Amino acid sequence: MSRKNRLSHLKTMMLMPIMLFLALFAFTPSAIASSSADITLDQAMAVIAAARTKAQKQGTLMDIAVVDAGANLKAFVRMDDAFLGSIDISIKKAKTARFFNMPTGDLGALAQPGKPLYNIEFSNGGLITFPGGLLLKDSKGVVIGAIGVSGSSVENDHEVALAGAQALLK
Amino acid sequence: MSRKNRLSHLKTMMLMPIMLFLALFAFTPSAIASSSADITLDQAMAVIAAARTKAQKQGTLMDIAVVDAGANLKAFVRMDDAFLGSIDISIKKAKTARFFNMPTGDLGALAQPGKPLYNIEFSNGGLITFPGGLLLKDSKGVVIGAIGVSGSSVENDHEVALAGAQALLK
Amino acid sequence: MSRKNRLSHLKTMMLMPIMLFLALFAFTPSAIASSSADITLDQAMAVIAAARTKAQKQGTLMDIAVVDAGANLKAFVRMDDAFLGSIDISIKKAKTARFFNMPTGDLGALAQPGKPLYNIEFSNGGLITFPGGLLLKDSKGVVIGAIGVSGSSVENDHEVALAGAQALLK
Amino acid sequence: MSRKNRLSHLKTMMLMPIMLFLALFAFTPSAIASSSADITLDQAMAVIAAARTKAQKQGTLMDIAVVDAGANLKAFVRMDDAFLGSIDISIKKAKTARFFNMPTGDLGALAQPGKPLYNIEFSNGGLITFPGGLLLKDSKGVVIGAIGVSGSSVENDHEVALAGAQALLK
Repeated sequence: MSRKNRLSHLKTMMLMPIMLFLALFAFTPSAIASSSADITLDQAMAVIAAARTKAQKQGTLMDIAVVDAGANLKAFVRMDDAFLGSIDISIKKAKTARFFNMPTGDLGALAQPGKPLYNIEFSNGGLITFPGGLLLKDSKGVVIGAIGVSGSSVENDHEVALAGAQALLK
Repeated sequence: MSRKNRLSHLKTMMLMPIMLFLALFAFTPSAIASSSADITLDQAMAVIAAARTKAQKQGTLMDIAVVDAGANLKAFVRMDDAFLGSIDISIKKAKTARFFNMPTGDLGALAQPGKPLYNIEFSNGGLITFPGGLLLKDSKGVVIGAIGVSGSSVENDHEVALAGAQALLK
Repeated sequence: MSRKNRLSHLKTMMLMPIMLFLALFAFTPSAIASSSADITLDQAMAVIAAARTKAQKQGTLMDIAVVDAGANLKAFVRMDDAFLGSIDISIKKAKTARFFNMPTGDLGALAQPGKPLYNIEFSNGGLITFPGGLLLKDSKGVVIGAIGVSGSSVENDHEVALAGAQALLK
Repeated sequence: MSRKNRLSHLKTMMLMPIMLFLALFAFTPSAIASSSADITLDQAMAVIAAARTKAQKQGTLMDIAVVDAGANLKAFVRMDDAFLGSIDISIKKAKTARFFNMPTGDLGALAQPGKPLYNIEFSNGGLITFPGGLLLKDSKGVVIGAIGVSGSSVENDHEVALAGAQALLK
């Protein structure tokens, strides 16, 4: 490292605490008040655990994604040997369910050729409109996110998503 | 090629000149006037206000987008609790209507499987070809932009878009 | 329309009310309970109105975007003759501010060559890290969204964004 | 169709039932045994747990992503109130580390203006080249994946990633 670079590095090192202070303390404190209507990580992990248990009972290998009320990824797991292609599908299913506040399969029925929402999949950077995506609601019925499951038949995917969603109602 | 397919093909061939005439002469000439034929923000907000009033009468929750004569976003509102997935769809409907100077539903009829414009949705970064997108014309009939509405059934979406478009004719 | 097509059309028409009932009533009611910590459209329009007033005082022409707590577009206006290229920039500024809970300019200071977050702009489908994006907080200090402004110098953009954000504190 | 092509076609036709059987019934368990050098979900969750513990000690809020030996997402968690913009960054850090088999910060040093890999971030759909991404190796030193952490200063991000990686060495 040259002398000039070392000085520049030192200057950066000295500025860092100030910049970090600004970034971490001056701006975020009031920002980190959680929305009461958004999913917590504990809730998301409980959803995923229930979904995995169901998949194990089925003998299937699943990709499981949970998004929050804003349709942003909250948690994801891919079971060992589950499809690589289902990473994106499970995430898109979860987003699609939240985007339109309905099970992905219900949207798919409206998106067939000749049906009112044909080719809606071209929106939002790509949707998945077959079963396996469901809304997540808290015990009061408020939507707090969505789950997307992919890795087996759409029937199995749907059942695993349902098991995940039901974990929040207990 | 079967006889039936040939007939269908012929029908398409015969319709093409009419469609092109409509597309090239009936719609564009007056549209290519200067910037005096572009929508103002006041006009766009009047369109959106009329569309919102209609949605409220319907009891629906809508995403409403207005683009200018250049198909560039001019104004957008998402009513409280309207679908997140309809942000992109309402904008794409408005752009699609202006891209081809026709209601999105009319384009959709040509984009079904087996129809002349099948899968046109792959162009322009994604189109939406079901109802809810309409051209906006000023009181002289000059195209100055387009409106796209999404959030309910395609029938409701279309009605709300129509109410928005009619606000410019008063 | 052929007889077969008419029948098919009729069938679709008859199925529509049922499908719409399922889509609109069975699924959404409990879904439309708003998060108490998310921006309303009334709030977003008040933010935009204050921002426009400030821009008019400056004599600048601005694109103004507001996103909600989930970084999803809530409202947008482009003043007459404001830059077309600022549509995307204003939206990206609003998203960037909410993505990292800080003013976009503060992130930009950390993203310069040799600085800790160099080229962070390659994430999230493209960020804008110069001034003009600010968090929106309600009167209790809870983050409910963000504003992005683009169309003039970054100083002017920032001032207009600030005027918008302050409208929520009154 | 040439004779050779027909034979090849026949062979495919005969193989199809077997392939379908494998795909639908024997499915993944025996058909697709895991690479012995790929991360398991149990390992990924142990990595994430150790990273979360470290973040809690720091008092930081992190997005944590784990990819497998193929650079495909294996598991992800976003701590409550962690940056939305860090979803993509944490995943890109993990992928970047595995793409080039080095800590993201090491790549970043080579990607500065004037350096040999300047603007390498344009590749692979976007890279993140500042610290917070590290390779994951098993106890024998074999690369089995990577971890990406984002949500605080790059120093904190790196430390949390390191704590995650070290969980596999115990």
